Amino acid sequence: MAGNDHAPVTVIGLGLMGQALAGAFLKAGHPTTVWNRSADKAQELVGQGAVLAASPAEAVAASELIVVCVSDYDAMHSVLDPLGSALSGKALVNLTSGSSEQAREKAGWAAGHGASYLDGAIMTVPALIGGAETVLFYSGPADVFAAHEATLKVLGGNTTHLGADHALAALYDVSLLGVMWGTLNSFLHGVALLDTVGVKASEFLPWATAWVDAVKGFATDYAGQIDAGDGEFPANDATMEVHAGALEHLVHESEAQGINPELPLFVQGLMARTIAAGHGKNSYASMVKVFQQPKA
Amino acid sequence: MAGNDHAPVTVIGLGLMGQALAGAFLKAGHPTTVWNRSADKAQELVGQGAVLAASPAEAVAASELIVVCVSDYDAMHSVLDPLGSALSGKALVNLTSGSSEQAREKAGWAAGHGASYLDGAIMTVPALIGGAETVLFYSGPADVFAAHEATLKVLGGNTTHLGADHALAALYDVSLLGVMWGTLNSFLHGVALLDTVGVKASEFLPWATAWVDAVKGFATDYAGQIDAGDGEFPANDATMEVHAGALEHLVHESEAQGINPELPLFVQGLMARTIAAGHGKNSYASMVKVFQQPKA
Repeated sequence: MAGNDHAPVTVIGLGLMGQALAGAFLKAGHPTTVWNRSADKAQELVGQGAVLAASPAEAVAASELIVVCVSDYDAMHSVLDPLGSALSGKALVNLTSGSSEQAREKAGWAAGHGASYLDGAIMTVPALIGGAETVLFYSGPADVFAAHEATLKVLGGNTTHLGADHALAALYDVSLLGVMWGTLNSFLHGVALLDTVGVKASEFLPWATAWVDAVKGFATDYAGQIDAGDGEFPANDATMEVHAGALEHLVHESEAQGINPELPLFVQGLMARTIAAGHGKNSYASMVKVFQQPKA
Repeated sequence: MAGNDHAPVTVIGLGLMGQALAGAFLKAGHPTTVWNRSADKAQELVGQGAVLAASPAEAVAASELIVVCVSDYDAMHSVLDPLGSALSGKALVNLTSGSSEQAREKAGWAAGHGASYLDGAIMTVPALIGGAETVLFYSGPADVFAAHEATLKVLGGNTTHLGADHALAALYDVSLLGVMWGTLNSFLHGVALLDTVGVKASEFLPWATAWVDAVKGFATDYAGQIDAGDGEFPANDATMEVHAGALEHLVHESEAQGINPELPLFVQGLMARTIAAGHGKNSYASMVKVFQQPKA
């Protein structure tokens, strides 16, 4: 939308991330108004053409699109709550980290003041804001996203609307971070195990990364099995019993080589419960059941 | 080595995997002798040109290269141990699953009977034996691997010698399986979390797989930090404290959405210990320390 090419934007919060956001808008030619509790953080941006507002009210008055990226929801409340009806007709885009309930609550609060609301999650570090591959998630009304998509895309080429439920951005965010920790922990456990026989992390690395590509293929099969929703998890590759047998080797090697066996022991507990629930001949996809259910 | 193109091979053990191995050798034109406790498993292979030996001794006499793929080390002992000096001058390639100590022990036993020994690990399912991308690991003397590499490569295009230590194949095997379970568990945890707001596994899948590619980049940085061995883990992306803060969100969302929070709680314990050990301002690579050390 050419009309959005130079839509004015307000950025509230100028931490490292907020500065990167405002800088990207400026670079793309958007008239950019900024506000921060400590005004000195705005200095560099003002040098690049940003307008420093004297107050949150002045900042909000300058643009229809208001991007908020402060330290947490408490900080956001303290800035926005006094503004009340000044927010009427504005599109609030919240890039402050918080929970999915906080996103839903804030959306309700914004609606009460006549503002539309998108909750967002930034899946990168400040240095990569504006990159062609950079992922930003948004959730909230589709029409609000569509109206501001061209402007928001300045922050990252992979700018995606996940759906109308304001909870989605926060939940995708933490779910993906979970995949990161899970993958890294098992990689580092392997590094620790192989270190006992003199293998360098960088020697294990190419095998681990190639293997992760194979695992993506398994996950693709499992996603289909889970979505089918028929409770069938056909073991096209290996049964849970075969997995559990192989896992015993990892537990044993960890103990025998004198490294910390906690991670495979933890997984062993999850597998044992999945098998006890009747999934011994099923695929690894059946493990989703143990994550869906609260611990007994 | 053209001379190896049609080297005779003996395959002992004709489970699903053993049949796939013998079938691949036959297909590549190797005179293939097979033996199995129940001879009926050999029927199809004999139809394809395999010679069914009447005894393990006859099977071993037929080839210099002896590939063993039975259910476990006990089964292997019961077949091979009575043969004793009949193994002299043979190259035993063990593709039976077992521990790294068992591999080392069996190598010692083989040496005592004048046989050379390679321990192997098959990183695929029977259907993919012979594939161009299929990975098989071998560990043991480099000259033994070199002498039989051309023949062994028939089983998988990515046939790799890891080193002289017979323990390596088994340890790489379980380390990579660990990466699989770690990645899959965290993916399935995310699937369970997003299911609570109606997101399908197949909707989460492309984001998870793309994100895993980003994680490979983080792992590459961390492998370099670990191998540097200077105890420095510079937080080029995020500090352990930042990770721990984000993980709190995952714990909270899991509990609030009513799914099983065990996995993020387990990771929280590992992170807390790493931070308590002084790594709060370090990168995630510092987590290797908690895996290297036995649980306190």
